[in-house]
Amino acid sequence: MTAAMGDNRYGKSGIRLATVQRDGDTHTFTDLEIEIRLAGDFGPVHVEGDNSPVLTTDTMRGTCYALARDGIDSPAAFARRLASRLLDASPSATRVWVRVFSFPWERVEVDGAPHRHTFRPAAGGQPVVTLVRERDGEPVVMGGVRGARVLKTTGSAFSDFRLDEYTTLPPTRDRIMATTMDATWGTTAGADLQALAQAVPATALARFATHDESESVQHTLYAMGRAVIETHPEVTWIRFVLPNEHHILVDLTPYGLDNPNEVFLVGDRPFGVIEGTVVRDGHTAEVGW
Amino acid sequence: MTAAMGDNRYGKSGIRLATVQRDGDTHTFTDLEIEIRLAGDFGPVHVEGDNSPVLTTDTMRGTCYALARDGIDSPAAFARRLASRLLDASPSATRVWVRVFSFPWERVEVDGAPHRHTFRPAAGGQPVVTLVRERDGEPVVMGGVRGARVLKTTGSAFSDFRLDEYTTLPPTRDRIMATTMDATWGTTAGADLQALAQAVPATALARFATHDESESVQHTLYAMGRAVIETHPEVTWIRFVLPNEHHILVDLTPYGLDNPNEVFLVGDRPFGVIEGTVVRDGHTAEVGW
Amino acid sequence: MTAAMGDNRYGKSGIRLATVQRDGDTHTFTDLEIEIRLAGDFGPVHVEGDNSPVLTTDTMRGTCYALARDGIDSPAAFARRLASRLLDASPSATRVWVRVFSFPWERVEVDGAPHRHTFRPAAGGQPVVTLVRERDGEPVVMGGVRGARVLKTTGSAFSDFRLDEYTTLPPTRDRIMATTMDATWGTTAGADLQALAQAVPATALARFATHDESESVQHTLYAMGRAVIETHPEVTWIRFVLPNEHHILVDLTPYGLDNPNEVFLVGDRPFGVIEGTVVRDGHTAEVGW
Amino acid sequence: MTAAMGDNRYGKSGIRLATVQRDGDTHTFTDLEIEIRLAGDFGPVHVEGDNSPVLTTDTMRGTCYALARDGIDSPAAFARRLASRLLDASPSATRVWVRVFSFPWERVEVDGAPHRHTFRPAAGGQPVVTLVRERDGEPVVMGGVRGARVLKTTGSAFSDFRLDEYTTLPPTRDRIMATTMDATWGTTAGADLQALAQAVPATALARFATHDESESVQHTLYAMGRAVIETHPEVTWIRFVLPNEHHILVDLTPYGLDNPNEVFLVGDRPFGVIEGTVVRDGHTAEVGW
Repeated sequence: MTAAMGDNRYGKSGIRLATVQRDGDTHTFTDLEIEIRLAGDFGPVHVEGDNSPVLTTDTMRGTCYALARDGIDSPAAFARRLASRLLDASPSATRVWVRVFSFPWERVEVDGAPHRHTFRPAAGGQPVVTLVRERDGEPVVMGGVRGARVLKTTGSAFSDFRLDEYTTLPPTRDRIMATTMDATWGTTAGADLQALAQAVPATALARFATHDESESVQHTLYAMGRAVIETHPEVTWIRFVLPNEHHILVDLTPYGLDNPNEVFLVGDRPFGVIEGTVVRDGHTAEVGW
Repeated sequence: MTAAMGDNRYGKSGIRLATVQRDGDTHTFTDLEIEIRLAGDFGPVHVEGDNSPVLTTDTMRGTCYALARDGIDSPAAFARRLASRLLDASPSATRVWVRVFSFPWERVEVDGAPHRHTFRPAAGGQPVVTLVRERDGEPVVMGGVRGARVLKTTGSAFSDFRLDEYTTLPPTRDRIMATTMDATWGTTAGADLQALAQAVPATALARFATHDESESVQHTLYAMGRAVIETHPEVTWIRFVLPNEHHILVDLTPYGLDNPNEVFLVGDRPFGVIEGTVVRDGHTAEVGW
Repeated sequence: MTAAMGDNRYGKSGIRLATVQRDGDTHTFTDLEIEIRLAGDFGPVHVEGDNSPVLTTDTMRGTCYALARDGIDSPAAFARRLASRLLDASPSATRVWVRVFSFPWERVEVDGAPHRHTFRPAAGGQPVVTLVRERDGEPVVMGGVRGARVLKTTGSAFSDFRLDEYTTLPPTRDRIMATTMDATWGTTAGADLQALAQAVPATALARFATHDESESVQHTLYAMGRAVIETHPEVTWIRFVLPNEHHILVDLTPYGLDNPNEVFLVGDRPFGVIEGTVVRDGHTAEVGW
Repeated sequence: MTAAMGDNRYGKSGIRLATVQRDGDTHTFTDLEIEIRLAGDFGPVHVEGDNSPVLTTDTMRGTCYALARDGIDSPAAFARRLASRLLDASPSATRVWVRVFSFPWERVEVDGAPHRHTFRPAAGGQPVVTLVRERDGEPVVMGGVRGARVLKTTGSAFSDFRLDEYTTLPPTRDRIMATTMDATWGTTAGADLQALAQAVPATALARFATHDESESVQHTLYAMGRAVIETHPEVTWIRFVLPNEHHILVDLTPYGLDNPNEVFLVGDRPFGVIEGTVVRDGHTAEVGW
């Protein structure tokens, strides 16, 4: 044989699961999307068509629903239970990945008060928990957020950059800066991941707002990361992926008009992307998914 | 010639435009998407390739940006100005449609206070203004909302429906009901459309929440419409399109577990769709787009 | 009561259904998405929460699967059977709409020959059948296509259009023209809808290609419609919705380069939209969905 | 300072670029989407807001258009030129990534012959070229494909898998198997990447078709990879990501009907995902993006 099976893993994506928890007629609604992967001694599955080691991806789905019957205390705790169960159920697996996306809902306001059992999607991004575990190790559980859009109308400059013959971008000392924050972070053992799921994005976005001396998305990325590290002692590193969602000042001179930073075209593509990790001294960033 | 040109119209979709209004360092950010159509005496454009009557769709785009230089007082007022300008600029046009979608942003909270110039997308649906105007008539301006998701975990039944040989759905007296409200409404002349853009969806969603005796999405649609008509004297009719976003109770018996209305599968497709108009006595609903 | 129930209808969207038909080991794969609406005497469902007239949307889904057991001879024939069954099963319904989207698959080529039971999505748009029927009438069945992208690199001009103070578009006698054709057409009784589902788009796209004297998308829309009417005697009218997918000549002069119609930026938004119906003499266009 | 800048890179995504090459009135249309990333000595950009090392992402965009003026000989050749230019233009960069997605178009058929300058999107997936280069090294250029859907109606089994208490999936010896192939492959130096861009997916899909003894998606993944390695001596490894797009046999017994493998529900979510690399003896797989 000239072709060997190399790295491989398998699992299920897009498992959508919701639970209702009742305290009288005050309800709590939890809404999740779960992804699972297993890796291990699955070579014969590929090479020989031997399915005996395969815990089916349909069983992974069923496991999520069965475990949810005991309640979702928190996405991180659920990810731990799920990972543990999957390793028990699949002796051939040596590594498991679990990712849990939360759809955050907030109570609808009725007559000035939050309703007891009616909800709407909350503003802000989507919490993400990523767990990676070797069979004989402790799970590494990372917090995260996805899709947290934010925009500032001033306090952002971009100038004094490198010029070459293909550079036409005019420098500016006052522009709109907008991004959709995706972030993943590591924590010390025993950290309260549920509390950090709200607190870390809040810290990052507040720093985005107050970083009035921003020279670039990179500059603000570091400011956000540093604020997170300084504010939350449990966070050991944070990795950002920040698109630069361009708002382009429209040239109104053909219409005989000026445009003193008031009218902007909202662009879709292309868009800049800034990726970077800020790391607490003495720590290193783990790899996630 | 055996083939004549019938009904036609043309225009521009997807015009994305944002403005910043400054009051010291307290800024207001307005973010819109605009659609335009014109109809009229454009037969020769099609049949003969005679472009002389054509106000180009690129000019429609430019007109939006140029008019925005004077500020966006409100989406409805902007739609009126735009429609008027387009009829002036296009003598061949006899009818104009303008639709303005708003992207609502809210201030990011920093240290417990709303920030002066940093924003994130607000929860809730997207306001929509639809204007239709004949050259010699008054514009008909309709309010609307798009994409307002809402979900209740109780107070919703579906039973006693018609049975036939292909009916397998079990009746239930307690289910999750979820939808994403799209609505359009008409108003009396002089109504405050900007205030209604917030108030009408709030009334409809509050009624969704309190309609604890719901027998169906249809039943709640009418309750929502009636609440809007009764609460807002300026609203003459309201049309809803309400998908029924199914949350399906998972059968856990194969796993030896019960499921007392706690664990749900969130379905994507297929989905029910309920469309209906509630009309104030003595009025009729206009056609929109 | 001040608020009455006006126009309403209900149904199911997104019913995804596939069938396999076997002739030895040569298989035929049919892949559909179905939408259904019913209207009629459903006022009490809304106003009183009386579900007795409601054929549930889940039953609509089940009906599709049950009827498919007898085979999908053609999307149009299936739509007729489905509409008939739904009216029989729902005495309160007076009108039914059925829309069937086809996902076209073609055989994968293996060793130069089409494989007997392996398929990939075919190029070209998606056939659509739309049926509207009153209880006591004959069904009106319309053909259609959705998403048929096409692009020509020459033979398209746009010039001599109306100028106003907000017009900045330069006229051109040679540009890229691109669109994604959506079309719906009516036919005489007894027409072979299945044959026309392929033939009408082919005729329209061929005319798009050969219409070298195009002065605008409107001009080509009419040429396409006329070609369809002249080529297919069974087609009584055809309605197009044609986005103008802009390919913008990049200004390379800042880089010290010319650009003799060679390098283009592919734009997303905004985009033009041209809507128009071409009608055979003595006929009128029906309303579809 | 307690927080240091760790790994980082930046660039542009979504650069859409098309070119027309003319040979008389026979035209060639090339349509690309390009992604770029740079990494290197950009710490001060983040920490100090020093933009002097920054080649702006807008300049990356301009560079694509300027280089395209000399023609796109092939996506791989263009990626090489682009990477080389970007390293020259950015002395602080030590590593560059370039990814080029092709939108394949085919000629529209008119009167039985391919038209000279009119095109429609071709069936099949989208070719992808990924280049990674260290400043002082040779570029590693990988081929790939994205979005190549394929489906077989027989010749696929899934049985004899591991059972646990949450397993409810019935084993089957005859099912529909469907996937959307994403693949990346490495090659020996000097390989004809342009020829392989067509040939590798064709080999993989043909093997998908002929692998009638498939016991699982994993089993077919390996068969596809092995066929590629055996057929194309220049390919050193190939990595697949294969969703398992479930087609679920509908239970028609509630309707009093059997279902002898004829009527299927097409599912969206959840879906299985199988990832695996097949490696030629003596080689190892590179990391791509």
